[in-house]
Amino acid sequence: MLMSNDLSAVVQRTIEKGPLVHAITNSITINDCANIILAGGGRPTMAESPEEAEEITACADALVLNLGNPSPEKIKAMLLAGREANRQGIPVVFDPVGVGASRFRMKAAADLLGNIRLSIIRGNASELRYLAQGQKSTSGVDAGKDDRVTEQNLSEWITQLQGLSARWGAVTVVSGEWDVVADASHSCILHNGHSMMRKITGSGCMLSALMGTYCGGNPGDPFAAAVAASGVMGISGERAYRNVQKQGGGTSSFRIALIDAVSQIQDTHWEEELHFAYR
Amino acid sequence: MLMSNDLSAVVQRTIEKGPLVHAITNSITINDCANIILAGGGRPTMAESPEEAEEITACADALVLNLGNPSPEKIKAMLLAGREANRQGIPVVFDPVGVGASRFRMKAAADLLGNIRLSIIRGNASELRYLAQGQKSTSGVDAGKDDRVTEQNLSEWITQLQGLSARWGAVTVVSGEWDVVADASHSCILHNGHSMMRKITGSGCMLSALMGTYCGGNPGDPFAAAVAASGVMGISGERAYRNVQKQGGGTSSFRIALIDAVSQIQDTHWEEELHFAYR
Amino acid sequence: MLMSNDLSAVVQRTIEKGPLVHAITNSITINDCANIILAGGGRPTMAESPEEAEEITACADALVLNLGNPSPEKIKAMLLAGREANRQGIPVVFDPVGVGASRFRMKAAADLLGNIRLSIIRGNASELRYLAQGQKSTSGVDAGKDDRVTEQNLSEWITQLQGLSARWGAVTVVSGEWDVVADASHSCILHNGHSMMRKITGSGCMLSALMGTYCGGNPGDPFAAAVAASGVMGISGERAYRNVQKQGGGTSSFRIALIDAVSQIQDTHWEEELHFAYR
Repeated sequence: MLMSNDLSAVVQRTIEKGPLVHAITNSITINDCANIILAGGGRPTMAESPEEAEEITACADALVLNLGNPSPEKIKAMLLAGREANRQGIPVVFDPVGVGASRFRMKAAADLLGNIRLSIIRGNASELRYLAQGQKSTSGVDAGKDDRVTEQNLSEWITQLQGLSARWGAVTVVSGEWDVVADASHSCILHNGHSMMRKITGSGCMLSALMGTYCGGNPGDPFAAAVAASGVMGISGERAYRNVQKQGGGTSSFRIALIDAVSQIQDTHWEEELHFAYR
Repeated sequence: MLMSNDLSAVVQRTIEKGPLVHAITNSITINDCANIILAGGGRPTMAESPEEAEEITACADALVLNLGNPSPEKIKAMLLAGREANRQGIPVVFDPVGVGASRFRMKAAADLLGNIRLSIIRGNASELRYLAQGQKSTSGVDAGKDDRVTEQNLSEWITQLQGLSARWGAVTVVSGEWDVVADASHSCILHNGHSMMRKITGSGCMLSALMGTYCGGNPGDPFAAAVAASGVMGISGERAYRNVQKQGGGTSSFRIALIDAVSQIQDTHWEEELHFAYR
Repeated sequence: MLMSNDLSAVVQRTIEKGPLVHAITNSITINDCANIILAGGGRPTMAESPEEAEEITACADALVLNLGNPSPEKIKAMLLAGREANRQGIPVVFDPVGVGASRFRMKAAADLLGNIRLSIIRGNASELRYLAQGQKSTSGVDAGKDDRVTEQNLSEWITQLQGLSARWGAVTVVSGEWDVVADASHSCILHNGHSMMRKITGSGCMLSALMGTYCGGNPGDPFAAAVAASGVMGISGERAYRNVQKQGGGTSSFRIALIDAVSQIQDTHWEEELHFAYR
């Protein structure tokens, strides 16, 4: 079982190593993703053309694949990059953004799941439920109201994620008001963060990019990387909210404060603010 | 005639509904557009591949088409999305960014105008004049000096926009120091905002995205949506400038403060700061 | 030899002229590039489709080509735009982002160098060394540790850059803790900036975009434009750091403060903070 000081070590090792993180991601939050990788201690590189995706991946310490705003070329690059990562033993994080929103994304997700060994699959409740049940969402890229993880359905979610983890051989994570991180035999529940994270774009994308960063700094322990990233983002969200409240700021100030908080996390006793439990 | 409390209701209804807004837009300001949609109470979704543009549109409450940094694939996606929006009765906002800057954009604009029933067409004076007269601009994406809307030529602009509104069956909006919103039989003049809005990229794109958001929250009343968005952005610009001045910030702080102000507008008596008149 | 008040004039002339700057750049930092062009007094326009790249370039005062996250279509647009710029006598700035990271980028760089007359080539030490020696980097888009410009190897770098400048007929610039600007017969060393500039994405891209802006405002003097941009960015980095420190901010606040400082530079005696010397 991970203790909170183990999580602190995950963050610290990443900063010491400065892993190169290759992200093939969407144009909406690509700048935020690059900046969160840097804030977490990594070095971002983004290359979404099939012409170079493999070669760039071969030098990286981690690969992040994000399904937002996809194109056929980008999916092709993801498949090439993912297979190369597998050949090189580089951890791969997959964020199935809005997977239930179109047949094109569904097919792309199936192709990625079928051809690449993933280390972490992270999404919101709707995205994970689609992956689990093949159920289409009609609510865009946010979790639908019926899909939210609540205190009442936590056990159900743990069971579901552990099944998915066993099926895909990956750590699975559902994020929201409650976060659940699972592999086939373990699970961890986190209850940090702030509702203002839903009022900016990119909270989820940044979390996946941070997971990739911590994976790069801690290869071989994607479970710890996923828990640490979920904790760091949640606590950073809480701290950002307090800072912004003090200064009367709105959602855009919150976005700045959130990345700030991640970039400053290692100088603080953040583990003490964690609300988490292993089941 | 709309009263200022009607405009307040436009904003409020949007927040209550939380409309899903599909934007096919440019990579330069895509993140700002997503964040302004959220700040206005909407939920953004961006999908610019022809593979999924129709399907994503079918679930949306509004569609925003932005001509900045276009590619043939993206124009194809816009046409597919626009036609689907028309079939489903979803309002469509069109922002002809830099339309006079190339034959490619001129042709794309003509295709979109010819094939899609638009609810709102919003641009700066040069863009609108090009659409009206087929006159090419050589000043990039900003309004040329000879094109500015001034107190002196307001009447001329109203007449011109009403003609365009009649021709295209859409609400037309020219934005700048003065904003004019028109349909075939009504018009509204607004005089809010701050010159610093021209020192950041995306002021216009964000305004169009906010119009889409308010259209999504108030389907069937694009005129009120356009007036409310123009008013909210103008007043947010003034408030942002005052905040930034107080703290000695520059243009980047202004951009953050502008989105902040939009995200906080509903908690204030913003209608009292409106300078607007119906003609 | 340039005096510091000449550099101040470079900045001032740009603000008075308001040059139109066409940038074909990467999606990661495209928004920052547009905003830094505005902060420097220019007007950004971005068009990366081969369909319109030439036509947009023809109206511009400067062209900036950035190799980050390239695609075959974008390289094609760069070649078309670059040739048009040459025909029109418009200065061209080239930033070979991550050029050593893939064969695709190496070939693209060779095509651009072989077909376009460049005014300025600016990169970090690894990128410049690759261009000089054909040596591949394996450290992503950042300068590798062995490549850093230090006080010890400054003379070597000057010789190397002057050779490159003679070969390519361009001003060459290597940026980092020390900046070196050279043409075939002159060189200038600058020692400003702050290490936090490496903790955000886009410092280099923004510097290249600012060089393009100053080139647009001072056609015919790319050397002065390159020195002025390096000085303004370095001093803005130092000022941004001091501001952020005072308020306890992190890396994202630093990014905002950096663009702020550039937008405010002309109201200050920034030349007095310059650490620079001609050799």
